[in-house]
Amino acid sequence: MPKLDLDSIPQSNATGYPPEYAGEVGDRWYRRLAPASGLSDFGASHVVLQPGAWSAQRHWHVDEDELVVMLSGEAVLVDDDGEHVMQAGDVAAFPKNDGNGHALQNRSDEPCIFVAIGRPSASDCHYPDIDMHLTDGRGFHRKDGSDFDY
Amino acid sequence: MPKLDLDSIPQSNATGYPPEYAGEVGDRWYRRLAPASGLSDFGASHVVLQPGAWSAQRHWHVDEDELVVMLSGEAVLVDDDGEHVMQAGDVAAFPKNDGNGHALQNRSDEPCIFVAIGRPSASDCHYPDIDMHLTDGRGFHRKDGSDFDY
Repeated sequence: MPKLDLDSIPQSNATGYPPEYAGEVGDRWYRRLAPASGLSDFGASHVVLQPGAWSAQRHWHVDEDELVVMLSGEAVLVDDDGEHVMQAGDVAAFPKNDGNGHALQNRSDEPCIFVAIGRPSASDCHYPDIDMHLTDGRGFHRKDGSDFDY
Repeated sequence: MPKLDLDSIPQSNATGYPPEYAGEVGDRWYRRLAPASGLSDFGASHVVLQPGAWSAQRHWHVDEDELVVMLSGEAVLVDDDGEHVMQAGDVAAFPKNDGNGHALQNRSDEPCIFVAIGRPSASDCHYPDIDMHLTDGRGFHRKDGSDFDY
C-alpha cells in the first residue's frame, strides 16, 4: 500500500563510523523507506534524533544530492554559513559537490523527526571537522589514507 | 544556504492538463525546490492544496518513483486499495510502474501541505479514471490517441 506503516519498518541506529566519531550518531534512529516500499530512483530515510544526537558528522558528498524535510521537533543545522534552527515544515537542500559540510544536531530535550532523501552513496564524502574521509569503494579512513584501528 | 527560504521561491498553480480535467488542481499551489536549490539527482515540490484541491488526477508513472511527505493539514490518498487519511508525519511511496493510480484530495476546510519527491517526467503516465494519457515526448492526449481541443 502506498501509505507507509512506519512502525512496521525496522529501525536501526547502526553506523559505519569508527568508534571515535560514532558517539554523536548513537541515538540517531533511522528507517530505510526505499527498500520497504519498492522505490529505486532515490533513497529516503525516516530519522528520529533523540536529544543530543546528530544526523551525521558534518560532511558533504561529491556526487550525491540530499534533501531534508523536517517533520517535528527542532534541530540545529550546522554548515559553513553558521547555525540555523530547523522546525516542522522546514526544508533544506544540499547540492552535490558544494563543499559546504552540513549536519543536523538535536540540542533540544525532545526527539526531532525528519525525512532525508538522497541516492545511495557512490562517491567520496568529505568531513571538514574530523580526521575522516569516505572513499567510494573503500569506505572510511583517515585523511592521510591510513586505516582506523577497528 | 541549505535551509530554504520557502516564501522566496515562486509559487504556481499552472497545469498542463486540458481544461476539462484542470479544475481539480486549480487550487494546487506548488514551489519547485530543485531549481531553487541546485539539486539535480531528483526533483522536489513543496505543495499547498487549498480546500477542495487535488494533487493530480489519479495517475501512475511507468518509469518514475514518487514519494510524498505530509507536513500539515489532512489529505485523503485515493488509490486502488481505497482511501487513506494522510496527516502530518505520514509518508507515502509510489513505485514506478506499479499500476496503482493515486492522488491526494484535500476534503478538509484547511490547507494541507506536503513535499513530493520524484524525477522529471520522462515516461508515459496513466490516468485510470479519465480519458487522458501522457505520452513521453508528446504530452497529454485522449486514450484513443486524439488531441484535446485546446
